[in-house]
Amino acid sequence: MLIFRIMKNWMIALLLAGTTFTWAHGQDNTRYTDARQFQIVGKGLPTSPVYQRFDSLLDKDLTPAVKHLSKHSSGIAVLFETNSMYIKAKWTLANGLFYNNIVPICHSGLDLYAWQNGKWQWAGVGRPGDKETANSGIIVSNMDGAMRQYMLYLPTYNELTSLEIGVAPEAQLGRPASPKIDTTHRIVIYGSSILQGASASRAGMVYSSILQRKTGWDVVNLGFSGNGKMEFPVAELLVKMPASVFVLDCIPNPSPKEIKERAYPFIKHLLDNRPEVPILLVETVIRENGYFDQKTDQDTKDKNAAIKEAYMKLKSEGYKQLHYLPATNLIGSDHEGTIDGVHLTDLGYMRQLEAMWPQLRQLMKKSHPIR
Amino acid sequence: MLIFRIMKNWMIALLLAGTTFTWAHGQDNTRYTDARQFQIVGKGLPTSPVYQRFDSLLDKDLTPAVKHLSKHSSGIAVLFETNSMYIKAKWTLANGLFYNNIVPICHSGLDLYAWQNGKWQWAGVGRPGDKETANSGIIVSNMDGAMRQYMLYLPTYNELTSLEIGVAPEAQLGRPASPKIDTTHRIVIYGSSILQGASASRAGMVYSSILQRKTGWDVVNLGFSGNGKMEFPVAELLVKMPASVFVLDCIPNPSPKEIKERAYPFIKHLLDNRPEVPILLVETVIRENGYFDQKTDQDTKDKNAAIKEAYMKLKSEGYKQLHYLPATNLIGSDHEGTIDGVHLTDLGYMRQLEAMWPQLRQLMKKSHPIR
Repeated sequence: MLIFRIMKNWMIALLLAGTTFTWAHGQDNTRYTDARQFQIVGKGLPTSPVYQRFDSLLDKDLTPAVKHLSKHSSGIAVLFETNSMYIKAKWTLANGLFYNNIVPICHSGLDLYAWQNGKWQWAGVGRPGDKETANSGIIVSNMDGAMRQYMLYLPTYNELTSLEIGVAPEAQLGRPASPKIDTTHRIVIYGSSILQGASASRAGMVYSSILQRKTGWDVVNLGFSGNGKMEFPVAELLVKMPASVFVLDCIPNPSPKEIKERAYPFIKHLLDNRPEVPILLVETVIRENGYFDQKTDQDTKDKNAAIKEAYMKLKSEGYKQLHYLPATNLIGSDHEGTIDGVHLTDLGYMRQLEAMWPQLRQLMKKSHPIR
Repeated sequence: MLIFRIMKNWMIALLLAGTTFTWAHGQDNTRYTDARQFQIVGKGLPTSPVYQRFDSLLDKDLTPAVKHLSKHSSGIAVLFETNSMYIKAKWTLANGLFYNNIVPICHSGLDLYAWQNGKWQWAGVGRPGDKETANSGIIVSNMDGAMRQYMLYLPTYNELTSLEIGVAPEAQLGRPASPKIDTTHRIVIYGSSILQGASASRAGMVYSSILQRKTGWDVVNLGFSGNGKMEFPVAELLVKMPASVFVLDCIPNPSPKEIKERAYPFIKHLLDNRPEVPILLVETVIRENGYFDQKTDQDTKDKNAAIKEAYMKLKSEGYKQLHYLPATNLIGSDHEGTIDGVHLTDLGYMRQLEAMWPQLRQLMKKSHPIR
């Protein structure tokens, strides 16, 4: 017994020493590959750099706020396949950020899914440090070494400046031969902070990402925190985007006055220039604090009255491809779907997608592959 | 009696005068009152200071980790009533903290519910700054001025060192005359980081808090991040606590070996000393990363095998008040109830409570008011 105990202690000592030795010399033999070599999904148009949503050099007429927010990588994901027994990542961010209502894993972290038994199944997260602009970590380990396809969602509320995927030195790693996201069908969603990802637990739980996995269609997230305000240059950009279905879920952001001025020309421009693409127009979700805050409640009602009016006017002009989703029960009736009365949690996102699904499914059936 | 009441009122007046004086110079005429004057719920035993869960001076035999974590105010809430048109708060924290998997509103913020139409309805949050130890803010405003009862949940993962509730200078503010939490019935839950509140969006969305509002019974949250390890001194403390039902949801924390050593004496001590209190023993929730990480999967299985064995042994000894909840589908089957494979989001918490509810309801029916 004693000899075993001595051996055990000695082995533990060796193990600890070994660990220290390896790490002291930085001898991590993980093989890292720049993720730009893999397939990137969730993109409306090509951009340079790739992990952003609009190309700020080309898209000169956008407001400074939209330009800035379009650099956030929300909704963008990397598709790759590997038989590695672990997956690591190294990623750099433009900014070290703090949000009181967004968890770091969501705003600056990574979120990995694996294609398993004919479905996308959650596999792991990349955890950012405290306002660290250079991050690294293990996303999943101790796997069986089977070849699988993976989808890695990028930060929702930060600008990703580089990303490397790390696998075991002997493992295969590459672009997927048969990608499980069908990029010939694409849903482009324009919206607010809610769509951008506040306040999901991780990037994959924003309703646009859940929709992407549920349908297998590519989904483009054009959520701009506080700035989905229907400026006309955004409509001009949207008409250039390959899309099977458009969803306009931006009503939380413009004021009632802005909706009265902007919604009609914005939507009409889309309808006239992309007559083949059905549009789902979504009322602003009820502000849960509006049940007590009478000013907020009135503002929400005024917004929905204004967008309903624009919708009715366009319908009266004969636009058949325009569809409308009222906010009634969009996130349930228990008042528990938000973190702060405004921004949806995973619970709220699940509910919103469920409420959107019947109409969205009909529009998808009527839609065409992208050109 | 009268002289005490006069003195009490005079002291309150002096306190309020002092508070008002300070703020008159900051040109905010909000009237702030120390929240310790109101009713505090979610407490297992009295402590000094009040916003913590164990009294570290008295409870000497706890591990340093449990002592430290017991200072976090998870599950504790303040009940008050007011007809103010707005509610503000000023609160101080012992530490400025960062968690990659917990949102600041949850770990260091405040979460307010109002009693409305015979239910607790969410009303607003107090937003902490970036590692600020002194915070203040508006929780809800523009209200109708009706007299209402409110419940304010405290930070889940920080030590609250002071709290003041702010109302309009002319508003009434006091302890509720008929508290909507029934403190003669109490559910005491012992658990892990999940129970403590990682990774709810706000304190009110932890399953213990949802249970409290759903039943109207008081619920005590004894979740200790990483440290619900069934040390015997914790059992000795639990037997001292007034309780109608005990829930043991700590299995995520101890190793299989620790469960083998500790679970039987820990639970037996509770059963023998509190034969009138039904106990619900909950298996550890499935680790969602365990579907890929084979080591994690094996560890979870070993934990649940060990706790099942302890349960079977105790049942064979005739303890009728011990009940068991297997982890099967505890948080659903879509693998989306966690932020990181371990810690539940609001979605996971809602699901766990739903899974626990049928058994819990039966145990509540069989239980007694606290002594």
